[in-house]
Amino acid sequence: MSELDDFFAEVTRLIDAELEGMIPADGARPQSLRDAIRWSLFGGGKHFRPALLIAVGRAFGAGDAKLKRTAAAVEMFHTYSLIHDDLPSMDDDDLRRGRETCHIKFGEATAILAGDALQALSFQVISDDANLSVETRLDLVSRLAKAAAKMVVGQQLDLEAEGTQTSLEDIEQIHRNKTGALIRFSAEAGAVIGEANADELSAISKYGERIGLLFQITDDLLDITRTTEELGKTAGKDVAADKATYPSLRGVEETRELASQVHRDAREAIESLDVRGATLRQIADFIVNRNA
Amino acid sequence: MSELDDFFAEVTRLIDAELEGMIPADGARPQSLRDAIRWSLFGGGKHFRPALLIAVGRAFGAGDAKLKRTAAAVEMFHTYSLIHDDLPSMDDDDLRRGRETCHIKFGEATAILAGDALQALSFQVISDDANLSVETRLDLVSRLAKAAAKMVVGQQLDLEAEGTQTSLEDIEQIHRNKTGALIRFSAEAGAVIGEANADELSAISKYGERIGLLFQITDDLLDITRTTEELGKTAGKDVAADKATYPSLRGVEETRELASQVHRDAREAIESLDVRGATLRQIADFIVNRNA
Repeated sequence: MSELDDFFAEVTRLIDAELEGMIPADGARPQSLRDAIRWSLFGGGKHFRPALLIAVGRAFGAGDAKLKRTAAAVEMFHTYSLIHDDLPSMDDDDLRRGRETCHIKFGEATAILAGDALQALSFQVISDDANLSVETRLDLVSRLAKAAAKMVVGQQLDLEAEGTQTSLEDIEQIHRNKTGALIRFSAEAGAVIGEANADELSAISKYGERIGLLFQITDDLLDITRTTEELGKTAGKDVAADKATYPSLRGVEETRELASQVHRDAREAIESLDVRGATLRQIADFIVNRNA
Repeated sequence: MSELDDFFAEVTRLIDAELEGMIPADGARPQSLRDAIRWSLFGGGKHFRPALLIAVGRAFGAGDAKLKRTAAAVEMFHTYSLIHDDLPSMDDDDLRRGRETCHIKFGEATAILAGDALQALSFQVISDDANLSVETRLDLVSRLAKAAAKMVVGQQLDLEAEGTQTSLEDIEQIHRNKTGALIRFSAEAGAVIGEANADELSAISKYGERIGLLFQITDDLLDITRTTEELGKTAGKDVAADKATYPSLRGVEETRELASQVHRDAREAIESLDVRGATLRQIADFIVNRNA
């Protein structure tokens, strides 16, 4: 295992323990809602967003006690967005992380409500985190709310783009909102909790933005180069839906070059920071090379 | 027009102006999402929850500048819950406030996203309200998030109760969560912004809880005693869905007596408060007598 594998495994243990404490298997009714939330929350996700938050936070010297609840909230928020995006009226996906999506397993109404609850719980977890100052919590809530609105905008633009002529600028606008906003929030949240100054926050924001774009570009590449089994989610969906992607507009080779450029940008953004940034560099390297 | 009619008209002007400023008719894409949000937000609602918030806040001497943004956020939040509750997989309602529901008009995906966006925007509006202290904003966010989770629980319990043997206790649990939580939040938020002390907040919380229950009991009564045209939404739905309600379990007469008792409780809760409470009493009287 690489150093980064160890780090991801550590984050998974940390986040899963937090989430277990917040939403235990048994508790107040309704059990179905609890089961649906837990099905999606403990579905074997990579915990990339909480890992990014914790990596940035640690780089600025913040302890895990201050980071872990917001990191868990980010995972909840991400899970809410996956559950809703998978719905029949949206991307209509039956498979996620190698198993049934929430609405296939628990029905559509429960899936919608599980997503709604996870959005609310994310805000609750951050606003009630006694390890953070009142100012920090409010700053995080405000930033998360703005990222949340962007994610909805991105999903709507994405749905509307299907079957239409889409430019590279359109695609970037979709990604910046749909997936980029929460990834950037995750990086920024780590810096906010780590009490970064304005210049540092700005550098991390740039890094988070590039990491988010890189994540999406490599996602597009994986969709056409890997199988459903390898990905644990339906592969080839973009082509099947006649969806414009980086490779469909620019070809695989040019898209790989673009990914390399964005990867360099991400590393450059944090180059001048006086922080313990090894993990941040490893994360950028990991995404550009990922194969699932 | 009664004094209370004037008050409701004033609140509607105040809230609609706030909401117009927050979500103008023209702005950044996607227009469809904007249209869908505005369709439901400016759908001729009574603004009962923001009115309650403002009435309580004014009773404690808070100015409208401090109250109006949280009041607008409550209306956004309520609208989100209506949009999602009306969805085909939930209550499957085509009609709301005398016109098409959001998913009938704009499609299901856009309706789900409009609801998701409104939940996020509610938290954003409160967390960014520079008229309130950081502590107050965070308190409101935390309370709203908890109410939000309860609303989801109530809706899920309600869906699961359909077609099953339901007791009066079950019904109360559903209502306390599904509709009661946000009504109580509205009352409490007014008191929090008005800097009520602990005893006062507790009295207002009790008042809000009773007002919420009263609202639901009279809603159940209206569903069986009024027509669709009179209500502006589908009447007789509870009977059609074989849904247990106060009148279906206890009959219309006993339910009317229960409403009178809950109305007295609500008025008693605020009796000892040293505040300008005339509007609060009028609101309780209005609900017990409402006919739409």
